[in-house]
Amino acid sequence: MDSKSGTETPQESGVEFFFNSAPPLKDRDQISQKLEVFITKISRSSESGKPIRVVCVTSGGTTVPLEQRCVRYIDNFSSGNRGAASTEYFVKAGYAVIFVHRWGSCQPYCRYLPQDSFLDFFDIAENSTIKVCEPHGTVVKGAIRDYRKAVEEGFLLKLSFTTIFEYLQILQMVATSMRCLKSHGMFYLAAAVSDFYVPWENMAKHKIQSAEGPLDMRLTQVPKMLLVLRKDWAPAAFCISFKLETDPDILLQKADMAMRKYGMHVVVANELATYKREVSVVTSGEKTRVCSHGQDHDLEEELIDLLVARHSEHIKKPSGIDMNEAL
Amino acid sequence: MDSKSGTETPQESGVEFFFNSAPPLKDRDQISQKLEVFITKISRSSESGKPIRVVCVTSGGTTVPLEQRCVRYIDNFSSGNRGAASTEYFVKAGYAVIFVHRWGSCQPYCRYLPQDSFLDFFDIAENSTIKVCEPHGTVVKGAIRDYRKAVEEGFLLKLSFTTIFEYLQILQMVATSMRCLKSHGMFYLAAAVSDFYVPWENMAKHKIQSAEGPLDMRLTQVPKMLLVLRKDWAPAAFCISFKLETDPDILLQKADMAMRKYGMHVVVANELATYKREVSVVTSGEKTRVCSHGQDHDLEEELIDLLVARHSEHIKKPSGIDMNEAL
Repeated sequence: MDSKSGTETPQESGVEFFFNSAPPLKDRDQISQKLEVFITKISRSSESGKPIRVVCVTSGGTTVPLEQRCVRYIDNFSSGNRGAASTEYFVKAGYAVIFVHRWGSCQPYCRYLPQDSFLDFFDIAENSTIKVCEPHGTVVKGAIRDYRKAVEEGFLLKLSFTTIFEYLQILQMVATSMRCLKSHGMFYLAAAVSDFYVPWENMAKHKIQSAEGPLDMRLTQVPKMLLVLRKDWAPAAFCISFKLETDPDILLQKADMAMRKYGMHVVVANELATYKREVSVVTSGEKTRVCSHGQDHDLEEELIDLLVARHSEHIKKPSGIDMNEAL
Repeated sequence: MDSKSGTETPQESGVEFFFNSAPPLKDRDQISQKLEVFITKISRSSESGKPIRVVCVTSGGTTVPLEQRCVRYIDNFSSGNRGAASTEYFVKAGYAVIFVHRWGSCQPYCRYLPQDSFLDFFDIAENSTIKVCEPHGTVVKGAIRDYRKAVEEGFLLKLSFTTIFEYLQILQMVATSMRCLKSHGMFYLAAAVSDFYVPWENMAKHKIQSAEGPLDMRLTQVPKMLLVLRKDWAPAAFCISFKLETDPDILLQKADMAMRKYGMHVVVANELATYKREVSVVTSGEKTRVCSHGQDHDLEEELIDLLVARHSEHIKKPSGIDMNEAL
């Protein structure tokens, strides 16, 4: 199956239609430059002779605007906590992380600092320096120190999105710029991506008026980009996607289906009611449960350990790993 | 027109249906207690013999869940910047503020500290104290100082919401607890409230599946609570609502209509393209344009000045001001 062969599948024409009709990314040049600098710097560094691995962590939910001059949009629930926590553990494991996150969602090293009460953490001391209100001192200082270190050593690049249009365009840019890393690249797609959208052309230009009774809407399916990522954008990279369901009866079956259908190496299956305490790591042939050991323990610690090990196996395999091998 | 008279209008039965079918507020008792303490403390204080005025500022957008175990929701665009800025100017003008805001939206005294790069503002000094990276020192210290002062002197109470169900239940609680303040109470309703919602009973229990082609949705109109606020919850309070449109041709006409229909004392009209630089303050009989004088100037400074003056006139009027007078 080759997207350049002339006979396009409905899936492929959906992808093309999506990108052609999407409003162009405003800061494309700036993002492109940041990516180039980051990847070049990482490619030149190495840890005891081995090339440094790079993971693209996506995090938070994408929005779907309902109006071109957008007042209303559909959003996907996601605090971004998993992506932020995972980023910290990937950096700890020696990975360089491109953190593609929903603007305003949870940030790495900020997880213990509640967003809403940020000013409650600080006070002005008598000598007019800033002091951290106890008992938060250790946590806040640790967060600042770890964050600074990751950024200054070039192990963390943050890129933000809001809409589904921005998200998929940025993902494409990151993926194509990571292609040169071959199997040392990883995608950890934890963002909650909209399944339905309103194509830009069909969208109401102005705010939809509320005076005329109930509102009827028809939403189009977002094309499944996982397949394009695996086939075209970065075919040698190690790919992990996430599946969230509220109904436990269909979860593992859907995770398994996603793995086969989109050629993912791993699918992490979450159930809405328990996703903070437990996930299932689904690979072809096995399912591993990863659980949190208590309130103060991140399940991401064990999850990232497991994925790093799987990534090492992937790297050791003969090169030229492609979709067919995974399918 | 009396809601207790037995013959209900469709509007009134819509309100009743909304509250009866809404999922109950989780932290109702806690909110109720906070409100009681805040109002009691303010009622006992006074500034040179005059009672302290109280304003309920609502801020940020409300969400409409599309599933009971919510993965997707419709959201209204609003950074919460206007509500946050206005809160600061109300406190400066001597008002006690109940800041009812969307969780995670812009907070008073935080406006100059971008949410996404919070950790970029700080560093650890050699003596292991926290220092603010220049040139942000003055801004950050000022923010901490002003915020602390407002909270400690009892002039700021923050309550947060996410969904339309939470917002309207909290607004009802705040309004009925402010009723005792009579004309010294003010409502400054800057939140971007959803016009459409899915009643809880009609809502999909589980995550809507994406495999079955396009998604068709029918949304119900949210009943207009402004009328109930004016008539029943706090009839003597001074009420300001906001109107945001993307189409300048219908904006002033819609603002005027909102004023008459819901008995608002003032409607602040915003156009999406220019709302940061300019608003129109519409009262019965006059329209006043308020503009920002440059990038570093908040139009809220002048806006709040104007509204405080109108509120003073409202207080001076003979008591018993009710809907009929405003209509």
